[in-house]
Parts: sequence; structure tokens; C-alpha cells
Amino acid sequence: MKKTKQLSSKRRRLGETGVFQRIEEIASRMEIPSSGVRLAIGDDAAVYRATTGYEQMLTCDWFLEGSHFLRDKHPADAVGWKCLARAVSDVAAMGGVPRCFLLSLALPATHTGVWLDQFLGGLRRAARRFACVLAGGDTTRNENILINVTVVGEARTGRAVLRSGARPGDALFVSGRLGEAELGLRLIRNSKHRPKRHDRRLQKHLYPEPRLALGRWLAEKRLPSAMMDLSDGLSSDLPRLCALSGVGARIAAGKIPLVPKPKSGRSPDYDALKIGCHGGDDYELLFTVPRRKWKHLPRSFHGLPITAIGEITEERALLLIHEAGHARRLENLGWDPFRKPLSEPLRLREDSELS
Amino acid sequence: MKKTKQLSSKRRRLGETGVFQRIEEIASRMEIPSSGVRLAIGDDAAVYRATTGYEQMLTCDWFLEGSHFLRDKHPADAVGWKCLARAVSDVAAMGGVPRCFLLSLALPATHTGVWLDQFLGGLRRAARRFACVLAGGDTTRNENILINVTVVGEARTGRAVLRSGARPGDALFVSGRLGEAELGLRLIRNSKHRPKRHDRRLQKHLYPEPRLALGRWLAEKRLPSAMMDLSDGLSSDLPRLCALSGVGARIAAGKIPLVPKPKSGRSPDYDALKIGCHGGDDYELLFTVPRRKWKHLPRSFHGLPITAIGEITEERALLLIHEAGHARRLENLGWDPFRKPLSEPLRLREDSELS
Repeated sequence: MKKTKQLSSKRRRLGETGVFQRIEEIASRMEIPSSGVRLAIGDDAAVYRATTGYEQMLTCDWFLEGSHFLRDKHPADAVGWKCLARAVSDVAAMGGVPRCFLLSLALPATHTGVWLDQFLGGLRRAARRFACVLAGGDTTRNENILINVTVVGEARTGRAVLRSGARPGDALFVSGRLGEAELGLRLIRNSKHRPKRHDRRLQKHLYPEPRLALGRWLAEKRLPSAMMDLSDGLSSDLPRLCALSGVGARIAAGKIPLVPKPKSGRSPDYDALKIGCHGGDDYELLFTVPRRKWKHLPRSFHGLPITAIGEITEERALLLIHEAGHARRLENLGWDPFRKPLSEPLRLREDSELS
Repeated sequence: MKKTKQLSSKRRRLGETGVFQRIEEIASRMEIPSSGVRLAIGDDAAVYRATTGYEQMLTCDWFLEGSHFLRDKHPADAVGWKCLARAVSDVAAMGGVPRCFLLSLALPATHTGVWLDQFLGGLRRAARRFACVLAGGDTTRNENILINVTVVGEARTGRAVLRSGARPGDALFVSGRLGEAELGLRLIRNSKHRPKRHDRRLQKHLYPEPRLALGRWLAEKRLPSAMMDLSDGLSSDLPRLCALSGVGARIAAGKIPLVPKPKSGRSPDYDALKIGCHGGDDYELLFTVPRRKWKHLPRSFHGLPITAIGEITEERALLLIHEAGHARRLENLGWDPFRKPLSEPLRLREDSELS
């Protein structure tokens, strides 16, 4: 946080210097021993000591009001949690361990009081949970809330799992259940009120859990030939893994671990398969495992289900095989802030428009 | 660039996938041998191999339309150059060597054609000049142009020069001349037309040169006790160095290397000292050197002047000593996008409002 600019400060509205001090205060409470961060906020740059024998992973993620969250609908502490969780998930997806992060934050003056406190509260909880230290960043003022997070992770040299290693015959696995975050988002978008933070149906959308332990275990056991996280939905993300590996895939529709129809709420057009295929923000791991290693894979990992949903093929198409046996091309209809901007109200009809 | 989202593409307007491909193409032409980047764009994260015996520097910088540049006034290739140059300057300020960077870019659909090409042209020139490889990033669409750059640099373990080492009695040095970038900005803001890229008076504002060679040389010779770059202006940046070192400073007004009044143009209130003290964006190095090492400092480094402008004091005040001998407190009036938003037209009177 090297640039601290003086602003007029009013009651609960902190100036730029105040914002900086608040973040510094939070950062000092985030200290995690042996993080590798030698010098953090306040200097020209953070100084980080890489672990010998390890490679560093670098990833950054936009988290923008209107595209990725709604100022009036998403609780500030969920915004703080999720902006870090999403970037950390990229490290999990390579089997790495997160070490530190940089926070770039642009806020309107109206959001430097309660909103900032709650945002930093969520961020601090996430940083502790993921053992990822705030090392620095940049703050400025802007009409819209803009967030960019850079995470540095590590993995033993040569052990990072890439997207490009899938081979024909490998089985395709997924962790957890697909579509739960999308369901939470729908509840929020269809509601006129600010959602309740503790509503269980919203937890996966508001406070996603990057699959760090599973990713690390898989990489250490050298089981996956390729791995990635599901951020935009299976139908958008699987094509990326397949393209980089130069392969295709056949998915058994009946095997995809889905979320059953919620008991409450109006969901006339509820289609668990469509939501599971195209819903984004789950941050589950999608990975391929060569045939000879299948037997080493448990059915669950510390309570998190691991499900084989299909197979990698030489033919480059992505096919969804339905139970009756017919195959359909899996259309790329995952989450896209441009196709369906969050800021536009969701009509109930969209349940059926999803595919 | 892991998130490639499909957008409708029209003639010169590229979709999200097109933007991603354009950046990938540029990145492949930026490859610099032995950069340490093993795997770049396309996977969940970039994989970077840190050099044994070195520490890593991590820095990120906002570069936002309206705050840091004007869409209709600043040439796109200068925006590309400068967004990287500013972040690299933080590495220079610690005596480090830049290695790679991540680019987070949010663009309106109208700017994915010619504007993006020119932006990437400037970025590529800067990346080559600074030997800093594009390793990854994130792209999305937004009404305003949003840029965030993260740079990873390296320095021999323990050799990074911090802001906190200045001690009473140390001499205070500055590279280059102060105020030249501010003068360029004024010319641009006062002009009704889009400026000419090659106008010599605008070069330091549009295409700043981080002082990498000087910073590295100083750190290798272990000459500075503290160092930083001047991004917001001497009167805003020096207090930061002094605060972290727990010291004050006395500056000789007559010693500050200033820019003479331009021959052309209306500048009735031109005050070189005010512009030199408070003008931002120079990206010169400000550093302190203990008395016993003064003799090792040349007057210039490969043609770049190095000037002693004052002394560090135990008393925490920042004083400007005028030639007549009287001392005045140096007010913090450096560049601040909030105090003087770039998007507001500059009145000529502001020359005199600067202090």
C-alpha cells in the first residue's frame, strides 16, 4: 500500500490515509509465521522469500461491482472472503499452497466506513483460513468498487498440475457437487431484499471454499494428469482443459453430482442438470487421472465427494451422454458476466433459458 | 488470462476470446530467455521459478481511466508503456531486477480493436525495454478502462534497499530533474487536441523510464541507506521515506534539479520550484547515503544527473531552506488524483494554486 493519498475525512468516511491505516492494521493481525513475507505494506514493494526447491504460482483476478458482485445485494464481508477465495482457488487447481497476496482496492468515499470494515473482516477470515498473508497492494478512490487480488502460491518444483496433461482414456473426476453456487446466486438475484449472510442455501455462493487440501493431496500423490478449478461452470471450463490437452471428453449426464431441487421457493423450471453443467462459481476441482491410477482415488476426501463423471477421448468433441444412451454436444453456456450481467434483474424464465 | 468469455464480435471489435488471443500473441513475442517463467498464459496460474539466493519483490499498481489517464487525451500506446513502467519503477526503487508481470485489463467493447492493438504495442515495447515478461493476467469487460499490473522482481537476498534505513546526517540525493512529467501533463490538460506522441516536451509524462540501471548499481555497491521512487512528487513521497525511517529532512531549495521555464506556451505563473517539489510522475530515485560513502557517488550515472539536495535530520520536520537562508515547512502537495481529478479541466490559474 505505497500510495496513501490525503482525502477529506468525514465521520465514518475515512480518507485515503485512513483506508490505508485500516488495511495495515488488519494486515498486522494476519501475520502467519513462516509465510516467507519479509517486508510487507508501506515500502515500494513487498519482499518475499521463495522456498528452496519450490516453484511459485502467480495468479490475479478481477472482482468488480456489477460484473462479479452487486453492491446492494452481496454482504461486504462475503465480498472480502470471495475476492481472495477465487484467486486462491487457482493455486489449489495446480496442487499448490498459497503463501501471500496483494490487494488492489478502489472505493467510493461512501464505502470507507462500515463497508470497508466488514470487507476487511471477511478478507481477514479468508486469509487465516487459507494461510495466505496480505503482503501489499494499492488503494485509490473510484465511483465503483474495484477489486483485484494477486496470489502467490508454491509447489515443489515440477509438481504443479497443469491443464495440458489429459490423455485419451483418462477418467474425468470432479469434487463436491455442481450447481450449488448458481442456486445461491439465483436466490439472491430473485430476492428484493439484501440476503441473510447465514442462509445455508447461500453459503457456497457467498463463501466458497477453494479445495486446497484435496488439490495438494492429489499433486503430492501425482495422481492427476491435468487439473483446473471450476469457476465459470463445467460447460465453459472443461473445453479449456480439453483445448490445452488437445483432447475431447464424454461425460455421463447421470454421473454428475447435482444439487436436488430446493424444497422451498418457486422453481417451476428447475433443471438440476442444466444448473450443474452451466452454473459458475463452484470452485470445485476438475481433474483427469490415467487408468492405472484410478484405484488410488478414494470416493471422498475428508467428507468431500470425488466422482468420476466421464472419460477423455481422442476425438475433440465434448459430448454429454444421457441415460437413454443418446449423446449431445455439451454447449458452452457457463457463467459469463457479459452474457448475463449481474446488475440486470433475473427473470424467473431464465431458469429455462439457461440451456 | 484464464478466463476467456465469449462475446459477440464485430469487425474491429474483438470479443473476449479475441482480446485474450491478441494478448497471448503479444505475450509470445515478449519471451525473454532465462526470465524464470516456465508456464505462462492459459493455465490456472503462471509458474515462476525464483532464482536461488534471491528474494522476490511483489508490487501492484492501479492505472485507471479518469484517475491516472484520460481516454481521449492519452495515446493508447503511452497507456500501455506507462502502466508497466510505473510498477517496474517500484522494483527499481529497491535496487531489484524486474522478471515478469501479470496484466489485469478491463475494456469497453469499443476499445478491443485499434485501441487494444496500440495499447499492446506500447506494453510490448516497455516489456522488452525492462526485460520483464508477461506471465499471465485476467481480462474482462467494463464501461471504463481499468488496468492493474503486478510486477515480480528479484534482488540478492538481503540487498533490497528499503525506505526505512535513513539516518540523521545522511545526505539526500535525487536522480534526473524534477517537474518534467508534471509540465507534460499540464500541456496535455491545457490543450484541446489529442497530443502528439512524439512531442519532446511530453516524453517524460507519456513514456517514463524507471531508473533500473541506477537502482541496481546503487544496491550492488550498497551505497543507499534508504531509497524510493518519486511517483507522487517530492513533497508527498519524502514524508513517506522519513516516516518509515523515523527521521526528518532539510532540503536546499537552490539544489533541487529543476526544469527551466518552457520557451513556448502561456505560463504566466510558471514556478519551477513549485512544480519540482509537488509535480508527480517523474519516477526518479530519491535516496539517502551515509556520510562515509558520499565519495563513491558520481555526479552522473550514464548521463543521468545525481544531485545532493539536502540532509536527513533527527528532528522530524521537513524543511525547505531558501537561498536567502529562511526555512519553510515543505507542505505535502504532491500529485493526488482525488484532490485534482485528471478528468476536470485544468485552469491556467492552477499554476499558482500548486502551493
